[in-house]
Amino acid sequence: MRDAVAFEEPSVGAMSKSGLSRNDLVARDAVDPLAPAREGFDLPPGLIYLDGNSLGALPRATAARVGETIEIEWGAGLVRSWNTHDWIAAPARVGAKIAPLVGAAAHEVIVADSTSVNLFKLVCGALGLRPDRRVILTEPGNFPTDLYVLQGIAGLLGSRVELRLVPRAELAGAIDEETAAVVLTHVHYKTAERWPMAEITARAHAKGALAVWDLSHSAGALAIDLGAVGADLALGCGYKYLNGGPGAPSFVFVAERWQEALASPLSGWMGHAAPFEFVDDYRPAPGVRRQLCGTPGILGLAALEAGVDAFAGVEMAALEGKGLALGDAFIDLVEARCELANLTLASPREAARRGSHVSFRHPDGYAIMQALIARGVIGDFRAPDILRFGLTPLYLRFADVWDAVETLRDVLASGDYRQPRFARRATVT
Amino acid sequence: MRDAVAFEEPSVGAMSKSGLSRNDLVARDAVDPLAPAREGFDLPPGLIYLDGNSLGALPRATAARVGETIEIEWGAGLVRSWNTHDWIAAPARVGAKIAPLVGAAAHEVIVADSTSVNLFKLVCGALGLRPDRRVILTEPGNFPTDLYVLQGIAGLLGSRVELRLVPRAELAGAIDEETAAVVLTHVHYKTAERWPMAEITARAHAKGALAVWDLSHSAGALAIDLGAVGADLALGCGYKYLNGGPGAPSFVFVAERWQEALASPLSGWMGHAAPFEFVDDYRPAPGVRRQLCGTPGILGLAALEAGVDAFAGVEMAALEGKGLALGDAFIDLVEARCELANLTLASPREAARRGSHVSFRHPDGYAIMQALIARGVIGDFRAPDILRFGLTPLYLRFADVWDAVETLRDVLASGDYRQPRFARRATVT
Repeated sequence: MRDAVAFEEPSVGAMSKSGLSRNDLVARDAVDPLAPAREGFDLPPGLIYLDGNSLGALPRATAARVGETIEIEWGAGLVRSWNTHDWIAAPARVGAKIAPLVGAAAHEVIVADSTSVNLFKLVCGALGLRPDRRVILTEPGNFPTDLYVLQGIAGLLGSRVELRLVPRAELAGAIDEETAAVVLTHVHYKTAERWPMAEITARAHAKGALAVWDLSHSAGALAIDLGAVGADLALGCGYKYLNGGPGAPSFVFVAERWQEALASPLSGWMGHAAPFEFVDDYRPAPGVRRQLCGTPGILGLAALEAGVDAFAGVEMAALEGKGLALGDAFIDLVEARCELANLTLASPREAARRGSHVSFRHPDGYAIMQALIARGVIGDFRAPDILRFGLTPLYLRFADVWDAVETLRDVLASGDYRQPRFARRATVT
Repeated sequence: MRDAVAFEEPSVGAMSKSGLSRNDLVARDAVDPLAPAREGFDLPPGLIYLDGNSLGALPRATAARVGETIEIEWGAGLVRSWNTHDWIAAPARVGAKIAPLVGAAAHEVIVADSTSVNLFKLVCGALGLRPDRRVILTEPGNFPTDLYVLQGIAGLLGSRVELRLVPRAELAGAIDEETAAVVLTHVHYKTAERWPMAEITARAHAKGALAVWDLSHSAGALAIDLGAVGADLALGCGYKYLNGGPGAPSFVFVAERWQEALASPLSGWMGHAAPFEFVDDYRPAPGVRRQLCGTPGILGLAALEAGVDAFAGVEMAALEGKGLALGDAFIDLVEARCELANLTLASPREAARRGSHVSFRHPDGYAIMQALIARGVIGDFRAPDILRFGLTPLYLRFADVWDAVETLRDVLASGDYRQPRFARRATVT
């Protein structure tokens, strides 16, 4: 069932701009109002980093922020810093900073745990809001951890849950009066295809179901407007476009209208109404705070806060526009300049249907990506044949796209990806 | 039901050593083979830190270790560091370093999530191992998050689970053929009373039940031997005696004999047998690795590793002995030198029944602790009336005990804790 997404082949001609030159792209950088944001990041010289959709780059402010958290707050402040440095409020404070990036109110977002754990919470919570329904609807080929967590819920709750995997083209039609929740990833991790969030949410609501959106591959790159969409529940990743560092904590969105009704199955003490009363009986905190479970990891939160602060003053619509323009340029240049015999676009050609990465299929995709990385162009490979290029609008330049595509062109034309050192082995990226 | 622990009043006289002088304690420091371990910590001058059981002190190595993780591994290595700096193996590597501190084999421990999340996993897993039993047994007054998580499981699984809270004195006798799992905290967070882990585990096994031990208030201070005890499942805290920093990730122990049978309800991708194959169907990783859920927080793991490395060369039996000796000295001195009118020992007088902290009750406990903190002696208060003093054997000196008790003596004798500035308000420690 893998890769059974509806999108197949792009129609190439209409938007091809094969006349692009490197100078054209340099000129676009010169007038790019977002260009200064790159200065907020510490990018290794000589590298073109096209994997910010897997692990965001290091903001310049992070090391000092985390260092201060360690030496001043923890080292000198010790346990007092829960109060004096307000560690206790960090999950809500950082959540409130993420909120405007996804069109949420400040009190609708909080930082907690991992995306996997948060998906578990929200889907169990959604089932609790729909006690007479048992169907969880998602698509095959969704990001693996989403599918695995749903399978875990189904395994735990037995006949209470039926997990239905419906291919993308048929999914909207499969939402019906049996559906408790539709659980989808906004932007597909492989193809970058974007779900029409408003339409699917409206369809879910029309059938009395809830929609749970995983924003891992879109938050921090697209102009998400959870409020306008009428979103119910969502979560997203801290270490991709939010630049929070490897394994950064995740964020959870609960629309205000659901906050008092939604229960978390992971009812740890930090989600208690009065955790420091140390009483025996759980009483959920008001609002989104009940989505907290254990003691929050303060070092990870400090790094995530620095990552989110790198968005200060950035208008999300402009950011999305730049990311999609980078993607258009990438596709245009590949089609105009690379050997296309075995290289096919795996992402939508139409920018409005894409997220901020573009993917191509190639039977030698693994080796080609290794050869690119060896030449300083870092994208990633996704089995079985996807070359994935993240076009992070906060710190990438249009000229980087030219240079990356030229490197790809050289790798393909020279055939040097056929060297044994680039042959596939177990990989972790 | 709170505080319904069996231990009540200590018998004081037998072990009183009121003849102790500060010089006696300085002399003990001079011959303490563990004294050099203090050099591994960056303790603020002029402070006596008796709250390492809530948040461990900062190891000297941590800032550089985390800084390197940020600047070299993340900043320069970027996504490649999952391989090149072996981030992917960090949870197992740090787990293997924790293992000898709790008497486990290296492959029986892994670092993941929070203690609350890990308790959820292990108890749901234990229920899966005992499909015909529905009783989860614990004690009232257990650490709140343990109770809250168990209540969450009961709420989620409905009639599949019955949560029974049985007071400590009756608990062993309440383990019966209906019991799926006994879930207890090895050392009580308030009183420091220690459960006889071997006896309770044996009793559980005799009745066909499993024992799940929360080691949060003992790991890194007591000489735990999970192997010798025949323990089934356990978890512990990374930020108390393990010195991993605020909200550090937790560790999970699964005895080898249970590893292939135990399912995690939080079946995220990092617990998959082949997470980077990106297949749709969950297949649990072999061994303890299936207890991983989402992407591990690498900054938190780096700090925890530095904390655990501070135990290098330390023999746990000697460490436990020192912690208990510090506790004995603390109790002796309080009883010999402080105004005892309203101050009563809340911990067992007998060292072998205690963990590495000691607690006293006082009706003005909150204000007294604030006055102590204002004078540079940091312990903590636990509602409604507990003054708690952590005697962390890795970095405390016997002379610190003298100085702390002298400060307590002054605070009580002067009555300055009655100042309005020390009056109770909401507190977070």
